[in-house]
Amino acid sequence: MTINESNLNRFRAMHRESEKYININPIQRGGIVPEKTKRVLDEWINGYSVCDFCEGILDCIKSPPVYEFVHKVLPEFLDVDAVRLTDGARESKFIVMHSISKPEDTVLVDQNAHYTSFVAAERAGLRIEEVPNSGYPEFMIDADRYAEKIDEVKPRLVIVTYPDGNYGNLIDVQEIGKICSEKEIPFLVNCAYSIGRMPISAKKLNADFIVGSGHKSMAASGPIGILGVKEEWEEIIFRKSEKFGNKEVELLGCGPRGLPIISLMTSFPYVVDRVKKWNEEVEKTRYFIKRIENISGIKQLGERPTRHDLNFIESKIFYEISQRHKKGRFFLYNELKKKGIVGIKPGLTKNFKISTYQLKKDEINKVIDAFEEISNL
Amino acid sequence: MTINESNLNRFRAMHRESEKYININPIQRGGIVPEKTKRVLDEWINGYSVCDFCEGILDCIKSPPVYEFVHKVLPEFLDVDAVRLTDGARESKFIVMHSISKPEDTVLVDQNAHYTSFVAAERAGLRIEEVPNSGYPEFMIDADRYAEKIDEVKPRLVIVTYPDGNYGNLIDVQEIGKICSEKEIPFLVNCAYSIGRMPISAKKLNADFIVGSGHKSMAASGPIGILGVKEEWEEIIFRKSEKFGNKEVELLGCGPRGLPIISLMTSFPYVVDRVKKWNEEVEKTRYFIKRIENISGIKQLGERPTRHDLNFIESKIFYEISQRHKKGRFFLYNELKKKGIVGIKPGLTKNFKISTYQLKKDEINKVIDAFEEISNL
Repeated sequence: MTINESNLNRFRAMHRESEKYININPIQRGGIVPEKTKRVLDEWINGYSVCDFCEGILDCIKSPPVYEFVHKVLPEFLDVDAVRLTDGARESKFIVMHSISKPEDTVLVDQNAHYTSFVAAERAGLRIEEVPNSGYPEFMIDADRYAEKIDEVKPRLVIVTYPDGNYGNLIDVQEIGKICSEKEIPFLVNCAYSIGRMPISAKKLNADFIVGSGHKSMAASGPIGILGVKEEWEEIIFRKSEKFGNKEVELLGCGPRGLPIISLMTSFPYVVDRVKKWNEEVEKTRYFIKRIENISGIKQLGERPTRHDLNFIESKIFYEISQRHKKGRFFLYNELKKKGIVGIKPGLTKNFKISTYQLKKDEINKVIDAFEEISNL
Repeated sequence: MTINESNLNRFRAMHRESEKYININPIQRGGIVPEKTKRVLDEWINGYSVCDFCEGILDCIKSPPVYEFVHKVLPEFLDVDAVRLTDGARESKFIVMHSISKPEDTVLVDQNAHYTSFVAAERAGLRIEEVPNSGYPEFMIDADRYAEKIDEVKPRLVIVTYPDGNYGNLIDVQEIGKICSEKEIPFLVNCAYSIGRMPISAKKLNADFIVGSGHKSMAASGPIGILGVKEEWEEIIFRKSEKFGNKEVELLGCGPRGLPIISLMTSFPYVVDRVKKWNEEVEKTRYFIKRIENISGIKQLGERPTRHDLNFIESKIFYEISQRHKKGRFFLYNELKKKGIVGIKPGLTKNFKISTYQLKKDEINKVIDAFEEISNL
């Protein structure tokens, strides 16, 4: 191709089609930026906006109050000794692996772990061992299985996904943390789907490291991640450069520059507030699940009753319809879109993930009505 | 501290003080997002906005046209075989080092290299050797010194900063590339201050890898980086996960999610246009330098005449004034600010970096007038 005016035009006005729809994709629901903050964000959209008054370390900037946010507010919010911002939850996990392990060490993860836990371990040159889930229909992970596996594979690091991104299962992370603590194995909890949605205390979870995601669950424009660290690990994870004594090696000097950090900060008061209302979100989800399970052939898999807004749905009825519908397996995507709903991947009918997080009651009812109507096709 | 309403309020309305000023900080000038694109960006500000129609790989998304941008447009723009987006130029450099070297290998960099080249090498466990510059007043790097040093230290990777971020020196990178090619040493050119400002062809530079920065020089809201790779390196740098066959290990699956990539794309037509006008920018810079050098005790260091908008200024006159001014070494910052100009770090008087990139002629004249008036204090 050639770079010319007509080819460039398509980049000039890219509108977001999904803006007009109810979006039930779990990765989207927790990263919606509050309307109120958008005007403020416009001021900070330029490249290095946050660096105007930097004296060399991003997370020590006083104006805007990054220092206070990273070193005072977030540690309190997460009940953890120290926090840094990273380019995302996956980067946080890699930083920990890369700092505390050497190639050929073993990392032990739950079978439900996000793919990035595996890929980060691969990047760090680690062997990966899995704690299997209980299989259909709950796919739960048992703390005792962690104990057995730890004795068997002697990992350098244990990871739990809390909740996992497939079933929204909230497994007994405290107990696993206790086991790791007794066996003196560093313990990382991936809270990409919990920090910013539900109350999280690193200390209560017995975690050495906790990981969060601004764009997944903290109403932030990304990419931006959280890394919380127990005091005893600070010197290792946040080790300084030999040549540039104020720069942290794993952050390559500074974490996410510019808008993401501003967005995380401006959304934070709103996030604090919504975390307090987590129980209401769970109640809304249970209402939604109960209503769609009234449709014959629809069933929520994973932990029951669900304790998280992200859920995995088995929908035999939609699969059956796809077998005879003229649009085939794309019928569900098309029918939902006609009704103003997006977020289920085109082509899926038998199983899909869904979240109603932060949807209003009438929007939830609209999704329920859509499911009911489509099930009658 | 305690997280309460009054503490949270300071995060609600953080306004960017520098918005009202002419900003002459070199790291800010190339990352100013065009006003016209801001309304479009508002639509994409939510966390995973770009992922609405993703089928598993960020840079293969067809709507918005990420695939076309990353795999067709950028390779043509940079005259390079393959491109990926990263979280920043520093992350691009680390990806290359981490992929092609093993700990204790040596990387050879120019003495003027950005600190992140050193920190990335430290993170990758590499030994660092430097090619010294010629010292005061030009601080140039000689291609022949690279040849000598390569023979001496047998590096796994050679890095050149083009231009460097202190003096804006554009050294003979083509010749260094030729030397590396003859000696079969992989060659990386850090173009964080050139890609998006001036025409860059990886092939003409004889580069195996080129690195750029969206928020530094491509009018993008960051953080976002560019990594351009010669075909023979693609399989190594972009190697896929063993467990998740479509995910690239070094990108941890996907590069920068959300707004940064949209911003890079919407600004791109504007960037293509401004790169064509690079000579005008150099002329404007030379005009500026000539005018301020008329002030006794002000001198541009580095390559002369300058060939880049970023320049290093020696200003004995301001240092002298600081010795007798009641604000001491903070006088320059304060006086400039009173005149509507920011971007020189508070406390600097003897030397500072400056850029007039993309400033209008009347703004440049305003800066010149300010310098003249302050020199008469």
